[in-house]
Amino acid sequence: MKILVEKTKEPKKKPSSEGLSFGTVFSDHMFLCDYSPEKGWHNARITPYRALPIPPSNMTIHYGQSIFEGLKAYKTEDKKVNLFRPAENIKRLNASCRRMCIPEIDEKFGVEAIKALVDIDRDWIPEEYGTSLYIRPFIFAADPYIGVRPSETYLFVIITGPVGAYYKEGINPVKIFVETKYVRAVVGGLGESKASANYAASLKAQVEAKEKGYTQVLWLDGIEKKYVEEVGTMNVFFVIGDEVVTPALTGSILPGITRKSSIELLKSWGYKVSERRITIDEVFEAHDKGMLKEVFGTGTAAVISPVGELNLDGKVITINNGEIGPVSKRLYDTITGIQYGRIPDKFGWIEQI
Amino acid sequence: MKILVEKTKEPKKKPSSEGLSFGTVFSDHMFLCDYSPEKGWHNARITPYRALPIPPSNMTIHYGQSIFEGLKAYKTEDKKVNLFRPAENIKRLNASCRRMCIPEIDEKFGVEAIKALVDIDRDWIPEEYGTSLYIRPFIFAADPYIGVRPSETYLFVIITGPVGAYYKEGINPVKIFVETKYVRAVVGGLGESKASANYAASLKAQVEAKEKGYTQVLWLDGIEKKYVEEVGTMNVFFVIGDEVVTPALTGSILPGITRKSSIELLKSWGYKVSERRITIDEVFEAHDKGMLKEVFGTGTAAVISPVGELNLDGKVITINNGEIGPVSKRLYDTITGIQYGRIPDKFGWIEQI
Repeated sequence: MKILVEKTKEPKKKPSSEGLSFGTVFSDHMFLCDYSPEKGWHNARITPYRALPIPPSNMTIHYGQSIFEGLKAYKTEDKKVNLFRPAENIKRLNASCRRMCIPEIDEKFGVEAIKALVDIDRDWIPEEYGTSLYIRPFIFAADPYIGVRPSETYLFVIITGPVGAYYKEGINPVKIFVETKYVRAVVGGLGESKASANYAASLKAQVEAKEKGYTQVLWLDGIEKKYVEEVGTMNVFFVIGDEVVTPALTGSILPGITRKSSIELLKSWGYKVSERRITIDEVFEAHDKGMLKEVFGTGTAAVISPVGELNLDGKVITINNGEIGPVSKRLYDTITGIQYGRIPDKFGWIEQI
Repeated sequence: MKILVEKTKEPKKKPSSEGLSFGTVFSDHMFLCDYSPEKGWHNARITPYRALPIPPSNMTIHYGQSIFEGLKAYKTEDKKVNLFRPAENIKRLNASCRRMCIPEIDEKFGVEAIKALVDIDRDWIPEEYGTSLYIRPFIFAADPYIGVRPSETYLFVIITGPVGAYYKEGINPVKIFVETKYVRAVVGGLGESKASANYAASLKAQVEAKEKGYTQVLWLDGIEKKYVEEVGTMNVFFVIGDEVVTPALTGSILPGITRKSSIELLKSWGYKVSERRITIDEVFEAHDKGMLKEVFGTGTAAVISPVGELNLDGKVITINNGEIGPVSKRLYDTITGIQYGRIPDKFGWIEQI
């Protein structure tokens, strides 16, 4: 599909690398594509970033039929632009489409759309190591209709914005509250798709954890409330003795791309990696036996986020003296190294624009 | 709070009573009110119905932080306008607010806003018996921000639209598929609030049930998959022998206003009403013993929706020969009678505008 381009006549001022935060500044352009039952996906276009006229009866607002993805573009030292496994994002977007009754997009076209948009706003990619251009593809229901059914029309949009380094003053392990009251997702629900609904379901727990002084929550399964699922908006890993354990993808857990990449890297380094069910009690018992070496989250925003403390119903454990451990560190250095082109890309994960 | 009014200069053509459907036609005006942490809820206004300029980074689209309500305005034979228990809707809206980290609205003000809007579009209320003006209050996150946290700003909106009689050719019992694969909600999740996320979670099951020739699904609890929860977007009742059973509000079930009104009416008529947990097996066993007299859903759209057939994993039972039963009929006639002012309102449920 051809992508029509309408360039902005009023380029915005770009923020400096130092003051960059996350999710507040957006680049000059956005990508849009419409879906209707008659035409399928059509009218692919890049336009200036601007508000969309949305009728108050828009189905997304009322019934939450929307999904999204998140990835980043990195500028290398020789000013090349790297994307990290973008086809994986479009594959997962399509998996979310299937779960949410949204028509899928062509995988190659999805990657092409990302590349075309990033290329036009290439100057928006900050250059300092650790900074990047965050890319947010999303699809949402567009029917102006009040009634519960899948929408007939959709909008596929991509927006981007420069974001700062996640760790400005070195990697700081986070304190995590084990959530035993609220449930994020359950098998048979939406947990393994990147549906807006999953994030809506996480807000209250997050707010209450923050009030208790914790950064995020560790989600347990919604059925027995004993199996570990995810940490905040990340997948979670445990280094127990010489085994690296991460919860198996049983249907309520997001199949993270950093998760997948971490497993592949760890295996290539000779680690014993187990994707299996793991109870929170096993984690605490491993700690009591001195076997719990590291806990960390994996996700696009932070890449690797070490966990320094876990609180389960008032029982608090400190992991690796609240410091980043060797497995977390090696994964972080390697993945970011590959992303910024400082380490050879043996796995073929990088697509250059 | 004063409500500023900007009347439309281009009134739309009103549809005729006969051709009315549901959710596609909207009245001339809408109500809007903004929230910011500094000002609280402010800038209440009625404007012409029109699209809202929404930035593509709007948090509702990405993270689904939105809730809604639904009620109707009925025109009586002497041209008065009746609302049915509107304060209950605003109470439930506030309950949804609390669960979804959205600031609550003043209950009296909420009812006042509904009345002011309906009054301005009074001519949009169709007059034929069975038709009504559907009223949709909703609140959604308004921050232009990419990142998972509750929004800081919100929009409270009310839109209305004329809707046809739900049963145009007499009440027709529906065929219901008992859902054993997908889960709508689980205790600890969002099930008891009217969050958009719950409806997003219901789409796939609904589509698959339709493909099998069923109108809606009957949801079971997400943990043991044996306790009955809701039917489609309605609460559900079973008449077993001389007991009327409806699932207790255990945390994953929507506290319906028609449900509550039905319980109150049934008790006033001397029925034994039990709000308790009920397994799907109990329902099928009651049928096998000849004890299952009626099954029906309750909700704002249909008021009472008799269930004529249930399919559990291929086992199909027909209820009351696929016809509406006396309890369903009496509830339907009484509630609609009260709504349209044809039956005295002993309970004080009607607010006239």
